[in-house]
Amino acid sequence: MRLIHAAASPFARKVRVLAAEAGLTPQIQLIDTAVLPIALNERVNALNPLGKVPVLEIDKGEVLFDSRVICEYLDSLHDQPRLIPSEPAARWRALRIAALADGLMDAALLVRYERAVRPAEYQWSEWVEGQMSKVYRALAALESNADELSKMPSIAHISVACALGYLDFRFSEIGWRDNHPELARFQESFAARESMRATIPG
Amino acid sequence: MRLIHAAASPFARKVRVLAAEAGLTPQIQLIDTAVLPIALNERVNALNPLGKVPVLEIDKGEVLFDSRVICEYLDSLHDQPRLIPSEPAARWRALRIAALADGLMDAALLVRYERAVRPAEYQWSEWVEGQMSKVYRALAALESNADELSKMPSIAHISVACALGYLDFRFSEIGWRDNHPELARFQESFAARESMRATIPG
Repeated sequence: MRLIHAAASPFARKVRVLAAEAGLTPQIQLIDTAVLPIALNERVNALNPLGKVPVLEIDKGEVLFDSRVICEYLDSLHDQPRLIPSEPAARWRALRIAALADGLMDAALLVRYERAVRPAEYQWSEWVEGQMSKVYRALAALESNADELSKMPSIAHISVACALGYLDFRFSEIGWRDNHPELARFQESFAARESMRATIPG
Repeated sequence: MRLIHAAASPFARKVRVLAAEAGLTPQIQLIDTAVLPIALNERVNALNPLGKVPVLEIDKGEVLFDSRVICEYLDSLHDQPRLIPSEPAARWRALRIAALADGLMDAALLVRYERAVRPAEYQWSEWVEGQMSKVYRALAALESNADELSKMPSIAHISVACALGYLDFRFSEIGWRDNHPELARFQESFAARESMRATIPG
């Protein structure tokens, strides 16, 4: 399999961390690229019309996206305990936390595009504030649900760790650890895993 | 169950159509609201920190989001054929098409926010063009994969129909039917279903 990814993409990192936790890293060839909503990347577009990473090319030439679909696919390929729980109660709990982390990443990425891609004269502070308020509310909700992150690693842990890692990478100035001690404790432990250390953005 | 939705949201429509196709409509109380990325909606925020619809309140007070998680949950509640196929090959085919449709909706929504929410002086044409190019590439890919939409209704059909319905609602000027005869044929048939007729945005 070939994973088309970008080192800076938190969604691509989520896939890579899940692959590593599932023991699948040796089966995946990484193809590094870069995508931006305003720049054509014909190589990515040919595989994913949405022009986004990650994209997984399965050996037969078949292609899967987006990150959630790829994570579910990869999780079906191994014999270790499922990272996306199949038992219903655990599954909905994990998917709710993972959706919260994905939404945090979506909002943070939109702020990143606003600040780093859009010319200064077209930047709109209310948009940034609105998206950042989603980031802060998501952080608060994750903090009060941090006990969900105490059990076995799952898609919830992986998604939250990648979301927090993205904040460290692009939004270090907000100092999220100051007001979120439970999340800080979780991240200190989870970010020490080999899957996370091998995928630090930069 | 209570579904917090907005009539204009294609992601909320997807959930409502799936619920109807699964025969679950009588069990779901609809709560209509409106959300915008720049305006606080405390009622939605209290349930979903990301401030987005759809949100499903399960009877016990538990909450699920986003639309994909809700669709999967609802699909686990009925005894008819699964709308999200469980057989692997069919599942990945359906989820890839559904991800393409979701991505089309994401891009179209970002264009809508740019044009209808952002003040004119902050609108940036390259952003609109970049997102619209995703819409057009997704349409082209769906057109050439329209045979995937000939079998039993699935999450693929539902997602594509809601994406096309959103284009009719907010982007009628692009006349997507002109260059996508297979999709036009699909939509003519699928949009006639009761699930779709009961959820027309407006």
